[in-house]
Amino acid sequence: MNAPIVHGGGITAAAAIYGGELEQWLDLSTGINPCPVPLPDVPMRTWHRLPDRYLVDRARTAARSYYRSGEMLPLPVPGTQSVIQLLPRLLEVAGRVAIVGPTYGEYERAFRMAGCSVDLVTRLDDVETDHAVIVIVNPNNPTGRAYAPEELIAFSKEMQARRAVVVVDEAFGDTCPELSLVPFVAQLQNVLICRSFGKFFGLAGLRLGFVVAVVPILRRLAELLGPWAVSGPALSIATELFASDVTAIQRRLSERAGVLRRTLEEGGLQVIGGTDLFALVDDEQAGELHQHLCRNHILVRKFDYEPRWLRFGLAADVASDERLSNALQSFRP
Amino acid sequence: MNAPIVHGGGITAAAAIYGGELEQWLDLSTGINPCPVPLPDVPMRTWHRLPDRYLVDRARTAARSYYRSGEMLPLPVPGTQSVIQLLPRLLEVAGRVAIVGPTYGEYERAFRMAGCSVDLVTRLDDVETDHAVIVIVNPNNPTGRAYAPEELIAFSKEMQARRAVVVVDEAFGDTCPELSLVPFVAQLQNVLICRSFGKFFGLAGLRLGFVVAVVPILRRLAELLGPWAVSGPALSIATELFASDVTAIQRRLSERAGVLRRTLEEGGLQVIGGTDLFALVDDEQAGELHQHLCRNHILVRKFDYEPRWLRFGLAADVASDERLSNALQSFRP
Repeated sequence: MNAPIVHGGGITAAAAIYGGELEQWLDLSTGINPCPVPLPDVPMRTWHRLPDRYLVDRARTAARSYYRSGEMLPLPVPGTQSVIQLLPRLLEVAGRVAIVGPTYGEYERAFRMAGCSVDLVTRLDDVETDHAVIVIVNPNNPTGRAYAPEELIAFSKEMQARRAVVVVDEAFGDTCPELSLVPFVAQLQNVLICRSFGKFFGLAGLRLGFVVAVVPILRRLAELLGPWAVSGPALSIATELFASDVTAIQRRLSERAGVLRRTLEEGGLQVIGGTDLFALVDDEQAGELHQHLCRNHILVRKFDYEPRWLRFGLAADVASDERLSNALQSFRP
Repeated sequence: MNAPIVHGGGITAAAAIYGGELEQWLDLSTGINPCPVPLPDVPMRTWHRLPDRYLVDRARTAARSYYRSGEMLPLPVPGTQSVIQLLPRLLEVAGRVAIVGPTYGEYERAFRMAGCSVDLVTRLDDVETDHAVIVIVNPNNPTGRAYAPEELIAFSKEMQARRAVVVVDEAFGDTCPELSLVPFVAQLQNVLICRSFGKFFGLAGLRLGFVVAVVPILRRLAELLGPWAVSGPALSIATELFASDVTAIQRRLSERAGVLRRTLEEGGLQVIGGTDLFALVDDEQAGELHQHLCRNHILVRKFDYEPRWLRFGLAADVASDERLSNALQSFRP
């Protein structure tokens, strides 16, 4: 069995080593919107009752508009991580798996746990004829590398001719809707797209995601998840927020991401990639910097497979920007 | 593939046939506490952040006290249905499955979907030597049939000698803690106990349950569920409610269940079983009664496999009691 992956979100663990109250820590270790949108009212019946078809159908209809999936109704899931766990069974993988990486580590872990052979490739051109499943995170986490929809449409059609399935994870796609493959998935019988709800809206505790794919794939996924997989409050909140002014959230994240990049560069760091929800830094002293930031009770994400990299999530406000800026200045004055 | 089961909670579907606004229906089709306890405050960070180890550990500690699991920490899961879905993989079933029934139908569906051979048996004595997994719902849904812990301890030890696993579903166990096998599970290496959170507390929309079993089983289950399987709000709410005055909830449910039984009997029906969360009626006109109640916008649970049975959930208040009573009187004056 593979060891669990150390993810962002671990300020409890960091505080156990470096001290400080949890609430004093500046958690930049995730790619979650640090300014959660105000929660809509959740009717008491939504907490009380099993989430019935009415609640699910309303969320699916709202998701269809938000994700621009045309006639296709996205399937709500209890976090896209739950889909990753089920992918080996869902896709009944009859061959090797190619993951275009480096990327989010849970895909590799889930496929290996199910006994699949996994190849980490760096380009679409490296995919081989015996790859039965190809995983692409777009835009990529943590590098921000992005494929245009036309590239992925052409690639997916080529894979369809080989009976291979393409999994596209658009977990960070809400800030760059022009990159989404969702509007084109009706013509792609072999594509499964995962969308994360919590990152963009700042509600990761909710555990909600959506999957867009042709009906036979969604039907099988729904069977594997079983009834009432998603909580009523999550469905209710998503239905409201999908219909809200999301461009205001996009603008705010874009502004925060600009400030983050400037703060890092003024701190003498080289930003080599990212999205509007995080920035990736390459630095030969990344390990020391990570420790230095921890001593200042600032947590960022490091990577076992690339010790020169650090991923910085967005700070919520100017005070946090300054705290990060001061910590960087004291590291490399 | 087996057809999905028509569960309680389907007032949307019933209203589509029999008319009426959803909120006008009296939903007695579930076994959920109709008087949900007041929701504790859910801190905004619980919605915002991924549910981290701190939140999970607090819920597990509170669950340990509530379920009386001694040294063993129950594992939170996103509804016990999610565990049923995973049982075939979790237990790596190398033989036939025995389900002591008739009972909750999802066990049979999940094992058959995974290709297992399933036998529905009616007594523990009917379990045979080649049964690798035995499922017991205790107290049983819908009959209320209950095994004392001593019976299940002896049975489980016998099964352990045969290397068979015993799954005990205590979904309706909160109103009869004296029946629980949880306090004894440390001595039973081959037992997995499912506890439902939402039924007793009236918060089924939350999607939360707990599993008690020895560490190797829980570790494997946690791997199959993957990280962040349970929502932050669910963990936070459970932590608070486990420490609240649950005897008041038990008293209230016991009172409501007594009223329900009297109402049914005064309506000329024979109650043949149940728990403090539902009553089971056997009647030769059950099908007609179900329709009659639907025409009065009251939904109860019927059973494909036993057309003489109807299951009645609790009504929330005296007004609902009277509505049910009047509907029964008009059926059989």
